[in-house]
Amino acid sequence: MEKTFKNLVKTDYPYLCGSKLLLAVSGGVDSVVLAHLCHSAKLDFAIAHCNFNLRGEESDGDEKFVVDLADSLEVDVYTESFDTLKFAENHGISVQMAARDLRYEWFSELSSSVQFDYTLTAHHANDNLETFLINLIRGTGPEGLTGIKKEKNEVVRPLLPFTRSQIENFARKKNYKWREDSSNASDKYMRNKIRHQIVPVMEEINPQLLDSFSKTQDHLQESLDLVEDYMSLLYPKLVQKDKYGYSLDIDFLKKVPHQKQILYQLLKSFGFTEWDDVYDLMHAQTGKMVLSDSHRLIKDRKKLLLTEHNEKTGNKEYRLDREEDLVMIPGMGSFHMSEVDKIGQTSQSCIYVPERKLKFPLVIRKWKKGDFFYPFGMNGKKKLSDFFKDEKFSLPEKEHTWILCSDKEIVWIINHRADNRFAVDKSDSKILKICIT
Amino acid sequence: MEKTFKNLVKTDYPYLCGSKLLLAVSGGVDSVVLAHLCHSAKLDFAIAHCNFNLRGEESDGDEKFVVDLADSLEVDVYTESFDTLKFAENHGISVQMAARDLRYEWFSELSSSVQFDYTLTAHHANDNLETFLINLIRGTGPEGLTGIKKEKNEVVRPLLPFTRSQIENFARKKNYKWREDSSNASDKYMRNKIRHQIVPVMEEINPQLLDSFSKTQDHLQESLDLVEDYMSLLYPKLVQKDKYGYSLDIDFLKKVPHQKQILYQLLKSFGFTEWDDVYDLMHAQTGKMVLSDSHRLIKDRKKLLLTEHNEKTGNKEYRLDREEDLVMIPGMGSFHMSEVDKIGQTSQSCIYVPERKLKFPLVIRKWKKGDFFYPFGMNGKKKLSDFFKDEKFSLPEKEHTWILCSDKEIVWIINHRADNRFAVDKSDSKILKICIT
Repeated sequence: MEKTFKNLVKTDYPYLCGSKLLLAVSGGVDSVVLAHLCHSAKLDFAIAHCNFNLRGEESDGDEKFVVDLADSLEVDVYTESFDTLKFAENHGISVQMAARDLRYEWFSELSSSVQFDYTLTAHHANDNLETFLINLIRGTGPEGLTGIKKEKNEVVRPLLPFTRSQIENFARKKNYKWREDSSNASDKYMRNKIRHQIVPVMEEINPQLLDSFSKTQDHLQESLDLVEDYMSLLYPKLVQKDKYGYSLDIDFLKKVPHQKQILYQLLKSFGFTEWDDVYDLMHAQTGKMVLSDSHRLIKDRKKLLLTEHNEKTGNKEYRLDREEDLVMIPGMGSFHMSEVDKIGQTSQSCIYVPERKLKFPLVIRKWKKGDFFYPFGMNGKKKLSDFFKDEKFSLPEKEHTWILCSDKEIVWIINHRADNRFAVDKSDSKILKICIT
Repeated sequence: MEKTFKNLVKTDYPYLCGSKLLLAVSGGVDSVVLAHLCHSAKLDFAIAHCNFNLRGEESDGDEKFVVDLADSLEVDVYTESFDTLKFAENHGISVQMAARDLRYEWFSELSSSVQFDYTLTAHHANDNLETFLINLIRGTGPEGLTGIKKEKNEVVRPLLPFTRSQIENFARKKNYKWREDSSNASDKYMRNKIRHQIVPVMEEINPQLLDSFSKTQDHLQESLDLVEDYMSLLYPKLVQKDKYGYSLDIDFLKKVPHQKQILYQLLKSFGFTEWDDVYDLMHAQTGKMVLSDSHRLIKDRKKLLLTEHNEKTGNKEYRLDREEDLVMIPGMGSFHMSEVDKIGQTSQSCIYVPERKLKFPLVIRKWKKGDFFYPFGMNGKKKLSDFFKDEKFSLPEKEHTWILCSDKEIVWIINHRADNRFAVDKSDSKILKICIT
């Protein structure tokens, strides 16, 4: 196995030679063997051990064992102690998930503070099959069937081609010492059932199970790679970045087969769970939306708009005093106010108002239901909601619209339309120019 | 279950109402329940039963049971007796596969002779999971993980949403009678192991296993649908139909990611098994090829040529007598010979030769190694192999090239080049025009 491992590193992971590696070692047989293999392959590595404090003295014994192992191999060792139960409770997750999160977070901290290039873990072929079966039994998307990745985000798993029994036999032959894990966390319980009751029956049927399984999984991964390629091809035709997020072209979507699956692929990373609602949105009325924890998908005429949840600026108001000539407004820009002699070139981002008509401080706020104004260039008043409708504002556009008020009256739909009541007369001598940039 | 079934037919299989259906009934609980359900849903069906003669008297008992069931339901019944063991032996396949082939072939015969619109089988959710697990254990491509199709080639499986225990409970509640199958064919043996030893453990871990599994499989199928869509998009850019088969554009192939998987997708239905050789062919020398049972993939400059295996015309010769003026040659066309006064318009499909130089009967044959001729319009002789090289013939083109000989001498590389030795002199009075159409 030493020779096979060396060859494997040479062919599949040549970048490991000459890199600084961090080895995750629990003290179990898999990670102990990995440490010995890396040592005999003369790789440049240090050992990291997490003490999750889940099994009292046993946990401390594991830590001592790993520190001794590092000493005997003459490599650096880093240990960290975690209150895993508390972390799980605080975050409302399982102990198993808490341990995983804590572990990978600490590895990543260590890697950047001590400058490791890669983290190595001892996952092997049986872990991979077990994870597949866990996902299969619980129900999963296609990604859950493609298994543990051999390389991802600077984490490398060079033992994936080896089976548990190969690793254990090697350890016995070499007389290595290791620690047995007596833990029975719920995830472990499920894994044990699969390991001891399901996989052996599968191996009775096909003694080459792990080999066949690895090929099956490769084929599946290859198909999913093609799905990704297809999506990269469709993406620029289907999705446009716009001011407040992304917009999806419904007309184009309707032209391709399997629209639902394509919507799923495009939106899967945005946390949506009510997929039927997402699909129905294509045919829904403008303004309807579906929410995820982080995002909203909004039907807007021939588009689906994807935006992040509105930041909590809903009721926020900013004041503009007469003596201030520059006010910054987060998410909008900055306000400039200056006195001018006459009306200059007009644009959507500037208005001219007679000072005598303004009551300071002016207020800048989001629009609200019932707001109305007297649109410049039109007769009479108009509800803001009607104005938005006529101008075909999307929901995110409405939400990002700010208005400038003097007392209760609207002076300016900022960036869009001024109000007639605040138009400059010939008689006005003091004119203020208010601009947003 | 009766009501659920009726609703399911209404929503998922509305076309079954008003169609003539053929029900495959073994006599086991699943197909017996299906027959009762179709009867109570007032569908128009007949019953078909295969007697595979694998279990002696028990098989005959099954047949009698099914005939009686059809009588009690007042529907037509068709039975057929098969020598399954002999069929399996003759075709070198397993008994299980023989039974499946015989069954579906007979169903299809029955459907066309008695004019049934659809065949219904009683496969259910557990069959589906078991088939998935069999494929997983043996190793499979992604298609092997997407399970039993609910509709395919006029075969419909309306019990797929139901579990085995739902079906058995319903049968017991209704006091239906059915036959237990004591068979232990090898495939059955594997299925039994999965059914009794693996699935129950999976259900202990997740009691909603079959529901979750059905969703997992749907997701997977959706991904594979997208792969098909992607391939349909690439196909016209990548593949061209040509004279002897298809040609794949290597330059285009090199521009897309995951070329290997794309080659696999394009070629998977042509029986190749040595995929690494197929992939290597992209970078191989012109003339290299990979064979499947039915096809050849040939590297030819910037193309991969896919052709069927050469029909066995290799050594075939045809004779052209002086008195015949029309000879048909399969796979090439027909030969016309006529006397003319003078040389008319020349073309690649006609030559003019002086009769005095020909020794009848002329021979039409494929080219062979060592052949040489005196190309018209050139000085001296040339090996045919060199001529092909200079003209950049692909292997299929070479193989489809015929030559016309007089005695041992080549008169014409048919459709390509005449021979100098048979050029017409001014003095020649008797000129033959030989054409191929």
